Amino acid sequence: KGGIGVKTRDGKFESKLGGRLQADAASYSGQPEMGDGSEFRRARISYSGTMYNVWDFKLEYDFASTGSNGRGITDAYLAYTGFEPMDITVGNFKTPFSLDYLTSANNTLFMERALPNAFSSGRKMGIMASNETTHWSWATGIFGDSITNKGGQNDEGWGATARGTWAPINDGVHFVHLGLGLNYRDTGDSGKVGFDSEAESHVSGVSIIDTGDITSVADYYNIGAELAAGHGPYSVQGEYITTKVNRNNGKDADFDGWYLQAGYILTGETRQYKNGVMGGVKPSSIVGEGGYGAWELALRYSSLDLSDAGIDGGEADAMTYGVNWYPTPTLRFSANYVDVLEVDGGPNDNDEPSVFQVRSQWAF
Amino acid sequence: KGGIGVKTRDGKFESKLGGRLQADAASYSGQPEMGDGSEFRRARISYSGTMYNVWDFKLEYDFASTGSNGRGITDAYLAYTGFEPMDITVGNFKTPFSLDYLTSANNTLFMERALPNAFSSGRKMGIMASNETTHWSWATGIFGDSITNKGGQNDEGWGATARGTWAPINDGVHFVHLGLGLNYRDTGDSGKVGFDSEAESHVSGVSIIDTGDITSVADYYNIGAELAAGHGPYSVQGEYITTKVNRNNGKDADFDGWYLQAGYILTGETRQYKNGVMGGVKPSSIVGEGGYGAWELALRYSSLDLSDAGIDGGEADAMTYGVNWYPTPTLRFSANYVDVLEVDGGPNDNDEPSVFQVRSQWAF
Amino acid sequence: KGGIGVKTRDGKFESKLGGRLQADAASYSGQPEMGDGSEFRRARISYSGTMYNVWDFKLEYDFASTGSNGRGITDAYLAYTGFEPMDITVGNFKTPFSLDYLTSANNTLFMERALPNAFSSGRKMGIMASNETTHWSWATGIFGDSITNKGGQNDEGWGATARGTWAPINDGVHFVHLGLGLNYRDTGDSGKVGFDSEAESHVSGVSIIDTGDITSVADYYNIGAELAAGHGPYSVQGEYITTKVNRNNGKDADFDGWYLQAGYILTGETRQYKNGVMGGVKPSSIVGEGGYGAWELALRYSSLDLSDAGIDGGEADAMTYGVNWYPTPTLRFSANYVDVLEVDGGPNDNDEPSVFQVRSQWAF
Repeated sequence: KGGIGVKTRDGKFESKLGGRLQADAASYSGQPEMGDGSEFRRARISYSGTMYNVWDFKLEYDFASTGSNGRGITDAYLAYTGFEPMDITVGNFKTPFSLDYLTSANNTLFMERALPNAFSSGRKMGIMASNETTHWSWATGIFGDSITNKGGQNDEGWGATARGTWAPINDGVHFVHLGLGLNYRDTGDSGKVGFDSEAESHVSGVSIIDTGDITSVADYYNIGAELAAGHGPYSVQGEYITTKVNRNNGKDADFDGWYLQAGYILTGETRQYKNGVMGGVKPSSIVGEGGYGAWELALRYSSLDLSDAGIDGGEADAMTYGVNWYPTPTLRFSANYVDVLEVDGGPNDNDEPSVFQVRSQWAF
Repeated sequence: KGGIGVKTRDGKFESKLGGRLQADAASYSGQPEMGDGSEFRRARISYSGTMYNVWDFKLEYDFASTGSNGRGITDAYLAYTGFEPMDITVGNFKTPFSLDYLTSANNTLFMERALPNAFSSGRKMGIMASNETTHWSWATGIFGDSITNKGGQNDEGWGATARGTWAPINDGVHFVHLGLGLNYRDTGDSGKVGFDSEAESHVSGVSIIDTGDITSVADYYNIGAELAAGHGPYSVQGEYITTKVNRNNGKDADFDGWYLQAGYILTGETRQYKNGVMGGVKPSSIVGEGGYGAWELALRYSSLDLSDAGIDGGEADAMTYGVNWYPTPTLRFSANYVDVLEVDGGPNDNDEPSVFQVRSQWAF
Repeated sequence: KGGIGVKTRDGKFESKLGGRLQADAASYSGQPEMGDGSEFRRARISYSGTMYNVWDFKLEYDFASTGSNGRGITDAYLAYTGFEPMDITVGNFKTPFSLDYLTSANNTLFMERALPNAFSSGRKMGIMASNETTHWSWATGIFGDSITNKGGQNDEGWGATARGTWAPINDGVHFVHLGLGLNYRDTGDSGKVGFDSEAESHVSGVSIIDTGDITSVADYYNIGAELAAGHGPYSVQGEYITTKVNRNNGKDADFDGWYLQAGYILTGETRQYKNGVMGGVKPSSIVGEGGYGAWELALRYSSLDLSDAGIDGGEADAMTYGVNWYPTPTLRFSANYVDVLEVDGGPNDNDEPSVFQVRSQWAF
């Protein structure tokens, strides 16, 4: 494990400085028009640690997404770990919903998460109770709005989220994971919500399907079912998420999406699974110590439908092919080819874009 | 003391990485309309240290207030401590005026400073001479404008500030503090200044009294008188600040404000006082080592008058009730209830808002 | 060497936290109107290190130039140093062109680089191969656009850059440096480029000569020749850069500029030269250990012509006088007087501004 880490002599304070950098380049074909280019997808520094045995803290900032007030703040919290049955966390952190979303972007099988990640609730300010063991995990919390939403005269939105997972098998080489999540959001005084997705590619920033702002929204909820399994170098993972938007004018809307993905590590390592989320790949042969790293092949099918009740966001299906190379435990190089099979409806009806993108990453 | 700190073997360089996080939530009642919600009040990382015995440096950034160029920079300076009679500091730091303002936001008795903090001059770029002993302190400096003021074709404003304090009693358990401050500001080519205050609450960002931009201003000055005392677990503190704005069109304006506050630490600790400013509370019983932390009750009355000479900013008085819990020396949880007794004049004439707000904080 | 630096026990990970702060103030005379004031020129924190012997990483952020997405990111890269003939670097870093530009702003002889720095290509995202020995260096790379350019529907620009240097003499006290650089840029879908320069002063932000946006640009290239030499406390340095802009409408434009500068260290130290760029001055007598630091005098003449083919950017010549004081290896104080001899053509025809500016700097 890298990073600057220091423990005081009396052991009452230990802290660690971590970082990550993801440099991406992408080239696009087909319609809609998307600009080729490069970007830092994430450029983060984090400062975390433990004070007086039972108090964890973290502050992480993403320099690749600064701008409005506090926008780059990702994880920023205080946690109390002194209770036996649960940890209590307060601050800004990921709302506990969706296996794909909760898996660190350092460790996702592909460069970008699947299309249904449009339904993830992102990081929010809130308070959460949670616990994890080898075979199960649960988390539930109450959340306010995202950091950047500074209300002025409007009340911010709020929500409640819960997720439970069960791993009947989890021995370090084999695992089976089942998960269920529920996310409820009240939109506050704004009464708006919108869902959209890029073509599983971030560089151009162009969305292929997009509901735009849905107005007169009272509240909405997401329900998600998760399934994952691993057997040595093989791993599979899938999710189905459905979303119901309750509108004050009576026209409720239902959206949904799903994905299924599989990976195979050519060099024989096992993709890690812990605490109800996927971990990364640790190469057993290291470049810099005479080795060649770990190599992984990956395949994904994903689908997202954002059209319902007069809202024409569009529907998209995409096939993604990926290769990952892990030269050391702290490095990753990825190449992904995303083939959007067809967009039905929405602003880009009948378009079939494709993307070739690469990433170099260090993280610790 | 926490944070990552390292000294080189030859002792010529020592440095420390510090941080703080304040997560707030607030609920508002009454008029004017203020939106309930949550925010990070401060999310800072600092890097500070000493080089070659006599050169101090610091760079601190607040990730909760990024945006325009350099806006999040708080303390950023170089100081020479090799002279006997005084230290010389150059860079960006707090203008030495007002006990309430100069006391770190980690340590203020309430979540937000009192209404008269509208007159504090904030951090500015400048050069300062200062010295402190057990019984007295002084600081005086010349200051340019705030970091974010990038003039283009206009000359920036500038100012001069001085403050002296005397503590006839200061033995670690008892103290008496007297202070006097003077702050002068020339508004530069802009010729503008404005004063305003929120309801001692930052989440909604709505000001209850506000002069708006006062134009044709040649210069202005603030004079402040400070009084504070401590006796074991008891502490009291008060200030009176008057401000005179000199306008080129002849209509000078006088504004003023004051507050008085008292705190009592139920668990018997003593609020620290050092170098002419208030310190924090160090619990003698620590949560995580079998203890319960320190508990403090607090009460404040504050008043601010921003109406004079045809400028109708309004006048407000507020009563604040607070509870602080310090589970460890690095943690603080606070709950405050602010009752604005009445707003007289200004944009929110006759309004009587109230606020309930909570904060969780780690800092080291 | 300062900063927080830590090596893991197995030596597989070492990292360092660095920083720098440059606080400037400037006063302007003559036309065009430029506002007196102060600013942080640079306020950076960097996190860098080596993983598994052959992988270097760095992430540096400049808090003085935050704003749009990722704008403050300066050096952010991953480098592989395991090949014998060359290092491979991927990420965001300086395009290898121009001795003046490639010399760290901590170490440049004057507070600001010479007028022809208008032609430097700045930092870009890209991939570069490079190598350095005592007597020569070379670097060549392919670069995308700057981080802040997020295309949306437009393809970003790209370019290729190469530089070679030869130091027939380089023994630590004497050196002779010859360099040649070539920079090519395709402007992408935007088809625009512009060149401008301030009066070798950054505080007011006013440009004295400026082509504005040149449109219908297919591509452009810069060619630069470098010469530098040192003899004990004496150093000289000069460059000539010519730029050719190829326009789709047929009117190609040629711009050029040059500078010559000389420094003399009164206290006898030698300005460092390494890896094809200038280094800083390490005082042999240190303030804080009974010494007085190192003192340096400097003189520069620079010239830049941005008028050609109907584009009236203007031409300027400037004489700069400088004094540098290095109290410790980590500190520098500078005072510069810039005398713009005359502006010919462009928006500020016949103006003759002058600037007095000072800087205090810590860096490690």
